[in-house]
Amino acid sequence: MAAGAPEAAAAGEIVITMLPAGPQVRQVYLGPDGIIARARPGALLIDCSTIDVETARAVAASAADSGFEMLDAPVSGGVIGAEAGTLTFMVGGEASAFSRGESILQAMGKTIVHAGPAGNGQTAKICNNMILGASMIAVCEGFALAEKLGLPAQTLFDIASKSTSQCWAMTSYCPVPGPVPAAPSNRGYAPGFTAAMMLKDLRLAQQAAGATAAATPLGAAAANLYQMFVDGGDGQLDFSGIMRFLRRQSLA
Amino acid sequence: MAAGAPEAAAAGEIVITMLPAGPQVRQVYLGPDGIIARARPGALLIDCSTIDVETARAVAASAADSGFEMLDAPVSGGVIGAEAGTLTFMVGGEASAFSRGESILQAMGKTIVHAGPAGNGQTAKICNNMILGASMIAVCEGFALAEKLGLPAQTLFDIASKSTSQCWAMTSYCPVPGPVPAAPSNRGYAPGFTAAMMLKDLRLAQQAAGATAAATPLGAAAANLYQMFVDGGDGQLDFSGIMRFLRRQSLA
Amino acid sequence: MAAGAPEAAAAGEIVITMLPAGPQVRQVYLGPDGIIARARPGALLIDCSTIDVETARAVAASAADSGFEMLDAPVSGGVIGAEAGTLTFMVGGEASAFSRGESILQAMGKTIVHAGPAGNGQTAKICNNMILGASMIAVCEGFALAEKLGLPAQTLFDIASKSTSQCWAMTSYCPVPGPVPAAPSNRGYAPGFTAAMMLKDLRLAQQAAGATAAATPLGAAAANLYQMFVDGGDGQLDFSGIMRFLRRQSLA
Amino acid sequence: MAAGAPEAAAAGEIVITMLPAGPQVRQVYLGPDGIIARARPGALLIDCSTIDVETARAVAASAADSGFEMLDAPVSGGVIGAEAGTLTFMVGGEASAFSRGESILQAMGKTIVHAGPAGNGQTAKICNNMILGASMIAVCEGFALAEKLGLPAQTLFDIASKSTSQCWAMTSYCPVPGPVPAAPSNRGYAPGFTAAMMLKDLRLAQQAAGATAAATPLGAAAANLYQMFVDGGDGQLDFSGIMRFLRRQSLA
Repeated sequence: MAAGAPEAAAAGEIVITMLPAGPQVRQVYLGPDGIIARARPGALLIDCSTIDVETARAVAASAADSGFEMLDAPVSGGVIGAEAGTLTFMVGGEASAFSRGESILQAMGKTIVHAGPAGNGQTAKICNNMILGASMIAVCEGFALAEKLGLPAQTLFDIASKSTSQCWAMTSYCPVPGPVPAAPSNRGYAPGFTAAMMLKDLRLAQQAAGATAAATPLGAAAANLYQMFVDGGDGQLDFSGIMRFLRRQSLA
Repeated sequence: MAAGAPEAAAAGEIVITMLPAGPQVRQVYLGPDGIIARARPGALLIDCSTIDVETARAVAASAADSGFEMLDAPVSGGVIGAEAGTLTFMVGGEASAFSRGESILQAMGKTIVHAGPAGNGQTAKICNNMILGASMIAVCEGFALAEKLGLPAQTLFDIASKSTSQCWAMTSYCPVPGPVPAAPSNRGYAPGFTAAMMLKDLRLAQQAAGATAAATPLGAAAANLYQMFVDGGDGQLDFSGIMRFLRRQSLA
Repeated sequence: MAAGAPEAAAAGEIVITMLPAGPQVRQVYLGPDGIIARARPGALLIDCSTIDVETARAVAASAADSGFEMLDAPVSGGVIGAEAGTLTFMVGGEASAFSRGESILQAMGKTIVHAGPAGNGQTAKICNNMILGASMIAVCEGFALAEKLGLPAQTLFDIASKSTSQCWAMTSYCPVPGPVPAAPSNRGYAPGFTAAMMLKDLRLAQQAAGATAAATPLGAAAANLYQMFVDGGDGQLDFSGIMRFLRRQSLA
Repeated sequence: MAAGAPEAAAAGEIVITMLPAGPQVRQVYLGPDGIIARARPGALLIDCSTIDVETARAVAASAADSGFEMLDAPVSGGVIGAEAGTLTFMVGGEASAFSRGESILQAMGKTIVHAGPAGNGQTAKICNNMILGASMIAVCEGFALAEKLGLPAQTLFDIASKSTSQCWAMTSYCPVPGPVPAAPSNRGYAPGFTAAMMLKDLRLAQQAAGATAAATPLGAAAANLYQMFVDGGDGQLDFSGIMRFLRRQSLA
């Protein structure tokens, strides 16, 4: 994936960027020597960064003011998804822009979904990941409680994975070793999708919730638990590693 | 399902009870004129109540002391499951008892799973439902945040239901009307599985967490949110109706 | 208090503003026709708004670049404090600026405290109010639990107000009617300090916590509970009125 | 304080016990060779244990059935209070029993308060300590956020301790070293009142909240944070040491 330097903007018809956070996106796109100032007329701008919705919409509006179509296209799937070619791009922007960009995104990911106008790619991602983060912690709590009560993890998994508590966090990334062989829990919580990245997305969700007055009590609780987990030095573990934090003991 | 009166205990070889809470189970089984005192020797005792793990284990131990095999077999699936014949029984007790009771439970439910020794049926159910309750609230928060940010519920559903936040609460009981036609949200949150029943199970999970020193921060938060929802007079709505509480406004 | 129109800036040596939120402060101070552009050289700028720390620091830096000293001086105490002349100003800015502004602030409030350089006034206020918001809810929970267990509110107050759970929220703004005659709970939760204002401050605290990666689990929970309380239409009640939300029933 | 062996019951007119938890209190009082069976007629029974309200009331009722007056008189104040002679006894039981027991309790503590009938001593203590536990965490969060934003702890203390966030947890047990010289934070969080004891009381409060259907969202969150702190091996630190857990770094 191109680094998104302004030079690229002048050279091609599609500019793709992936940057750490909103301020960098503002700078790279809106700066005096930035992409919007220097891109070739008619270029399609695709920002694959995961950033706050407000910035995504502001930059897209600036792009439109200068005659550019732009997509916000954050990606999900983590390292496993990248290696397996199963990344999902959640894309915001006009339909015409999506049509232009879809094929190039298909070359990079397995699933490309159009979530609506500018910013909706970011919105879809943070809503998805807020649910995911809370689900993962809930799954960890369920397995931790089961263990305390003498119910083996495999037994709970066999029951719950076919019942009403089934969720991706349980059936694909099961936070206790054993039930799901491919899950990070079986390799010492090597990511996968790091806790630090999950924390970033949960914080973006909280930022959006604050800005729009949305009540998200479990999303907020999840953000704080991941904050403490990351503060403790475990940010580079897979996000399912929060099992260790909730139990504060290693699982056999 | 039989009412579990002591008369039934004397009459048949299998006694099935379903009672509101632990104290009633203690009374009906352990009372001076109770099932253990009056059941025919060799009878299999099956308690389908959803009660606290400690009581389930204490009553099963008393039964064993008197020479009876006993199963704790709480059921999940709610009204929809009962009507559709898709109830799940999560069963605790000795393997020999499970073998004896499995066929009669199969007559009542679709899935009958053996979770291990006495009390493990209850444990499986409360762990499952604790994850479920927290997942449901997380899903509600995700859809509420999406709406505030201008992402339609159907769009979020189309993306999230195939992504990492997929969970039963979303894909089978979607708390916003529309995406899942059979979900209670499309009929004014008529249950389904009532919020009052979910609260009961979340409280049992908290009781077990307290007794075993398990950390369950999201489970505890979910219990309190359902408490406030039920206190507000909405206990007979489906548990997905907590969407209304989180938004405090009706969805169109 | 002056409205802070740019005209005032040109007219006097001290400009005082009080605005709803950060964007307005940016606009009024930094706009092309704003205070920094038009104030008389040497004027002291005092912003009494309660806004985010980041904006307070950015505007103060711009003021300094243009040669102005500036204070952020949010006020606490609510309607009761204003009527009783007991408002507290928490002030950020250089010591020299504080010296210049102290006397005018003393004319408006009872307690004027210098919290350090620019932004520290805002920081002091949101940290104070985050603790306050969580304390108030904790006090409500304590009284609600006591009532359920048959301990009268007055008895709990008599004990707790002299014990380790003593706090201002209990002893000055007791959320149950009776123990503290001057408290809003005795007049139907007429403010006082509205729940909507508390929510604003809790959201500012969450914004700052997100920006600085601080873990604030109870602060976040308090923000969400106030969000739901305000969403339910009770934003104009005193913030101690959240007692009603936690109980969902009126206290006799 | 006497150990409460049955021998003591026969020997004196006042029996005082202090035991770890409800089951031991049941055993020592209600067992076949227990206090109620063996105490001298007319003896006053005083249980200074901190236990669940339900057990306290059940044991007191059994005592009354056998003609004994009984007080539940849990104590608060911790090691510091014991050394300084400032312990508080919160006492439940009939007025006549309180009159008989007051003088002996005065010999052990500074403040003796009558909270009403049987169980109200326990109720007062757990409500007080639930508020205290949540307050302490809220104070920690406030100081942690202040530090991240560059506001020194001493400055926040100087302001907040005289403002609306003032509470005993801040002004007597300030969780950051410095502002309150006698606080445990200045001696490496040597107790004081241990985190393990606070956790016990928070769990008792949760048990009572579950049994009476009281919503206590912050109380529940506090219980879980202390659970994780204690699980991490820090149960013997003072309860203000949860500052370390929230920051996951040592304060200078």
